[in-house]
Amino acid sequence: MAGNTFGQAFRITTFGESHGAAIGVIIDGCPAGLEIDPDFIQSELDKRKPGQSKITTQRKESDTVQILSGIFEGRSTGTPIAMLIPNEDQRSKDYSHNENTFRPSHADFTYQTKYGIRDHRGGGRSSARETAARVAAGAVAKLLLQAQGIEILASVTSVGKMNAPEVKIENAKDFLRIREENIVRCAEPETAAKMIDYIDDIRKKGDTVGGKISCTILNCPVGLGEPVFDKLHADLGKAMLSINAVHGFEYGSGFAGSEMLGSEHNDIFRKDEKGNIQTLTNNSGGIQGGISNGMPITFKVAFKPVATIMQNQETVDAEGNAAEIKGKGRHDPCVVPRAVPIVEAMAALVLADLWLRNFGAKL
Amino acid sequence: MAGNTFGQAFRITTFGESHGAAIGVIIDGCPAGLEIDPDFIQSELDKRKPGQSKITTQRKESDTVQILSGIFEGRSTGTPIAMLIPNEDQRSKDYSHNENTFRPSHADFTYQTKYGIRDHRGGGRSSARETAARVAAGAVAKLLLQAQGIEILASVTSVGKMNAPEVKIENAKDFLRIREENIVRCAEPETAAKMIDYIDDIRKKGDTVGGKISCTILNCPVGLGEPVFDKLHADLGKAMLSINAVHGFEYGSGFAGSEMLGSEHNDIFRKDEKGNIQTLTNNSGGIQGGISNGMPITFKVAFKPVATIMQNQETVDAEGNAAEIKGKGRHDPCVVPRAVPIVEAMAALVLADLWLRNFGAKL
Amino acid sequence: MAGNTFGQAFRITTFGESHGAAIGVIIDGCPAGLEIDPDFIQSELDKRKPGQSKITTQRKESDTVQILSGIFEGRSTGTPIAMLIPNEDQRSKDYSHNENTFRPSHADFTYQTKYGIRDHRGGGRSSARETAARVAAGAVAKLLLQAQGIEILASVTSVGKMNAPEVKIENAKDFLRIREENIVRCAEPETAAKMIDYIDDIRKKGDTVGGKISCTILNCPVGLGEPVFDKLHADLGKAMLSINAVHGFEYGSGFAGSEMLGSEHNDIFRKDEKGNIQTLTNNSGGIQGGISNGMPITFKVAFKPVATIMQNQETVDAEGNAAEIKGKGRHDPCVVPRAVPIVEAMAALVLADLWLRNFGAKL
Amino acid sequence: MAGNTFGQAFRITTFGESHGAAIGVIIDGCPAGLEIDPDFIQSELDKRKPGQSKITTQRKESDTVQILSGIFEGRSTGTPIAMLIPNEDQRSKDYSHNENTFRPSHADFTYQTKYGIRDHRGGGRSSARETAARVAAGAVAKLLLQAQGIEILASVTSVGKMNAPEVKIENAKDFLRIREENIVRCAEPETAAKMIDYIDDIRKKGDTVGGKISCTILNCPVGLGEPVFDKLHADLGKAMLSINAVHGFEYGSGFAGSEMLGSEHNDIFRKDEKGNIQTLTNNSGGIQGGISNGMPITFKVAFKPVATIMQNQETVDAEGNAAEIKGKGRHDPCVVPRAVPIVEAMAALVLADLWLRNFGAKL
Repeated sequence: MAGNTFGQAFRITTFGESHGAAIGVIIDGCPAGLEIDPDFIQSELDKRKPGQSKITTQRKESDTVQILSGIFEGRSTGTPIAMLIPNEDQRSKDYSHNENTFRPSHADFTYQTKYGIRDHRGGGRSSARETAARVAAGAVAKLLLQAQGIEILASVTSVGKMNAPEVKIENAKDFLRIREENIVRCAEPETAAKMIDYIDDIRKKGDTVGGKISCTILNCPVGLGEPVFDKLHADLGKAMLSINAVHGFEYGSGFAGSEMLGSEHNDIFRKDEKGNIQTLTNNSGGIQGGISNGMPITFKVAFKPVATIMQNQETVDAEGNAAEIKGKGRHDPCVVPRAVPIVEAMAALVLADLWLRNFGAKL
Repeated sequence: MAGNTFGQAFRITTFGESHGAAIGVIIDGCPAGLEIDPDFIQSELDKRKPGQSKITTQRKESDTVQILSGIFEGRSTGTPIAMLIPNEDQRSKDYSHNENTFRPSHADFTYQTKYGIRDHRGGGRSSARETAARVAAGAVAKLLLQAQGIEILASVTSVGKMNAPEVKIENAKDFLRIREENIVRCAEPETAAKMIDYIDDIRKKGDTVGGKISCTILNCPVGLGEPVFDKLHADLGKAMLSINAVHGFEYGSGFAGSEMLGSEHNDIFRKDEKGNIQTLTNNSGGIQGGISNGMPITFKVAFKPVATIMQNQETVDAEGNAAEIKGKGRHDPCVVPRAVPIVEAMAALVLADLWLRNFGAKL
Repeated sequence: MAGNTFGQAFRITTFGESHGAAIGVIIDGCPAGLEIDPDFIQSELDKRKPGQSKITTQRKESDTVQILSGIFEGRSTGTPIAMLIPNEDQRSKDYSHNENTFRPSHADFTYQTKYGIRDHRGGGRSSARETAARVAAGAVAKLLLQAQGIEILASVTSVGKMNAPEVKIENAKDFLRIREENIVRCAEPETAAKMIDYIDDIRKKGDTVGGKISCTILNCPVGLGEPVFDKLHADLGKAMLSINAVHGFEYGSGFAGSEMLGSEHNDIFRKDEKGNIQTLTNNSGGIQGGISNGMPITFKVAFKPVATIMQNQETVDAEGNAAEIKGKGRHDPCVVPRAVPIVEAMAALVLADLWLRNFGAKL
Repeated sequence: MAGNTFGQAFRITTFGESHGAAIGVIIDGCPAGLEIDPDFIQSELDKRKPGQSKITTQRKESDTVQILSGIFEGRSTGTPIAMLIPNEDQRSKDYSHNENTFRPSHADFTYQTKYGIRDHRGGGRSSARETAARVAAGAVAKLLLQAQGIEILASVTSVGKMNAPEVKIENAKDFLRIREENIVRCAEPETAAKMIDYIDDIRKKGDTVGGKISCTILNCPVGLGEPVFDKLHADLGKAMLSINAVHGFEYGSGFAGSEMLGSEHNDIFRKDEKGNIQTLTNNSGGIQGGISNGMPITFKVAFKPVATIMQNQETVDAEGNAAEIKGKGRHDPCVVPRAVPIVEAMAALVLADLWLRNFGAKL
């Protein structure tokens, strides 16, 4: 029972290997009548695509999306939306080295053992290339949410031990403009410059480094989340943890909250000037009892360093014999700059799904 | 579309409110022929039940489980296993205070707004009392896994800012014996004693405190996890985040791993003396590409402090008018001691589900 | 992967064996705020319960339903509704004869072979007793639909080769009154009397006979059904075929329609006096492209004769040795009178599910 | 919540409109290591493709399948198998007549009302063209089943009121050879010739006619089917009813069985010479209690006449005004010859799904 479907009401199924003919996605459950701008989908993919800067992999993929179904005269019809992204710049011969040898901290060993067969080229299905399909689907989910005024805003807040100061988000447009002005996608320009230099330095050493992405969701109404299992933060957590290289997820006060007293941590309710019930603090991260409470939703995602390093490493081959392996192919020294649109896409998919489950499929 | 079902192959659905007639669970998908000892299920519930020590709530519930179906002459029949836990010691009148007033950092406000109606007594469905049903179901999942030699071992490793030193697990039996010898369920006796004093002190002040639970799973074979969405750690993360009061989840190197270099973080493969492929380090937390790799599976869960404190707090009523509220009812000063069996139960449910999805339902 | 859950948005999971402690059901997804009258649920169960007349089994079960959760002050809260029906009049010793011998055309052989273990008493899980849980859940679905004006009206139209003339349904109330005035639940009194005599005659001979139930659904709006797989009639078909003893399902023109020409079969659209688009004929059975078209939905269900007969039959035992078996226990000579509420319940469950999937969960 | 996914363990999701860029399917859950011959998939599609004979539509589609993922060096890898069938011979201008007018007994009216927008060209998503994707997926399911010795054998047994005599199936190969020797896919050559003449005559009159397909599944082991809802015949019924134009389904004794006595209908168990438990008769259609019993599985499917006729018909336009419409485009006078591979494909999908649910995903 493979697990390539995500969501219940806004449901996506992805397919494709890193070095196969194409990757793609079917969205089933997008409400009818939604205006869908293919350029917006493409612009989201462009933020994730390889080769976009000196601190990302140099693999050349235009990641041009083809929409095959489900849209008629610019609007969704309520039928499945299939999108295809052909692979263009495979260099499969770069991958003969891992055909019979297991790269450390990659999925070569587990896929081989679980399935008894694997497409080793570029990591096959386990490659983060699959996430392009998620970004395409997430773009459609974003369009659905934007029509409700909801904004999903992620940025890089840590690279290795280097942390950005917290940025107050005045509005979505400015936040995104500032973030996109630097190639590391940090919302604070000074730290961004330092992060870029640091990653470039790591890259030159043939090493890699981890990092963290923070995300804030604005204007989410009260009511998203389906307890007791499909709590909003539980679905967000699963979504984030399903992204390649993610090792941790926290929302609201997160791990730090576990060190606090209840008297410090509780968020006091107040009626604001517009008559809405709000909380004075937001340790709840916009979620109480697994349901959005109308405050900004906040969470953070931790990414481990990319496993492919351009250094010799010990390992074993398929028979368990000692072997040595060195990274080949073209890889990212740090995954977080390109992961920002993936985090946003997965958040959009969760919210679109819970939106439809709560408010129904009629736009 | 409510979300009270968890799992696909080993699938549970829970029901019940804190102050209703009963809570319970149906397990659908338990393989036929499994020996099921009702005493083991009860012993797991006893670890979660209220009133077990001075540092837990004093609500008196025997949490006696009734098995209604699915078991014949001591073995599962492959049909649904329904289990019922009657509520006994409700004191619903303790809850008139939150009928029209929203307790800070509780689910009163979000449930009321989402559903337009709520059973306010004891938090109704949003109460952690619901997790007793999970523990009962998790006990059956544990029996399935124990028959395969798999052990799930959780313990309290932090209370507030107080952390236990890391304990090496020699074997499951000893670990559990030591853990159960103290009421806080810490696997290191000296820290346990300090934690108990600290929680008791917090309790006397009418305050509460958060904490962390760490979990290690031994003897899990290679192959559990269904990429790309139902990765083992993504399902574990969702399971943990669905537990009341959880604000964070990390596995393997976790958040700390995001500060590391690839050259430090990668787990080198080696063949051990028995001919099995192992890794020298375990930053992967026993999971690579979303699939178990045969090493111990390790993860950590962060719990916020319990929201009910015995102090006056500002809030609003259902009309948004300013109000004051003080905790009533009987509550835990720190949730982690009783959450240990819940963490284990949810981990067992995830593993049983992925076991069946990978290996099939024939015992 | 057991299959004891039905529906996606209005989702039920049933449990229980014929001679276990109880049978029951959890409804997950019932919208909040629905008025739920327990007496109505009980009255539906009373139509299905054994011992209600001379032409049904004489097993004495009051089938008293207990509602355990999900309802607060007479209305649904949006949380799971659990209902329990204790078993009262088991006579398990009546079933020693099939412990090691397979009753012809029963599920003894297939359950034993599939699961390797079975609760043989009264057929265990394969007993039609399980359908009481469906009727309880279907009653809640009916309340949801009745609030929208939808009426589900089934009746016995054939017993063996004896067929009732087609009855024009003027209104739901009269239809149900006439139907309930006879114990065979035929909507045409003269035929009903003959059917009753016929069944009673069959019963005295220790034999059984099959029959058919027809169902009409009034006032269903346009739009229910989720192509391409979850078409309204496909979901109805699965629902009906999942009822014990059902061997056939047809809707609209059904099997007879396959003998017609397109020019005869097509339903011409017309605007009626109220401005609604209707069809002149209804060979489509109220469903086009898998979606309700606003016309009455019509379908028919064929039930085989009950397998338990009070006559000696050849069979084999668990080792395959030739054996002889004679029906014991208390059984129905013809299942259709008691199956009428089951057909209605399953239809209600399908419609409630598709209603929520199309219109959302807000009442 | 759209319904374009079928199956749980062997799960397909289809997409595409009649006159869009392409139709296609993703299979999620195909076990790893299955040999997959693209030529076999194509040969199945060829049996369904338009333009294959004088009694089918003359639309020219090569229906050439492209496999995009999930197969490596001729074998499945356990990852999603995506297949694409580009549309080639759309004549969308043929469909201006139904842009604002509802064709009788088509899905124009229901789609327009449900979704508020529709791709009217060629019926869009409601076109039977979508079933090509099912046939491609079904071919993979057949390969899985054939590796277990299971054969699915459908043929046309009725066209209008013309019925073929029952044919005894000696072996799969001969059955298929005889069936494929005539363009109506009847397994009895003499009747086939008469059916062809009859359909051709109907075609010349601009009319259409319905028909029936019978199917027998050989060598299915005991154990497929997951009660109480996912019974083998319930899943088969839903699968068949989800095919365009199907109005009825019966298995085993079917509707005729409802006219029989229990003493006539019961299938007596016997041990055969190989020691297997068999039944003397097969009124159960190979299924007891919803689980395959090892006997041939038999069912029958009724198709209404194609709704598009080349005759003037009254109807209404989008505003409900009276209008007249005449069939345009290229259509089948009788759908059953081309539906034979669709019936087989859907049966294969059901069996593959239940196979995996019972026996697990390891080949």
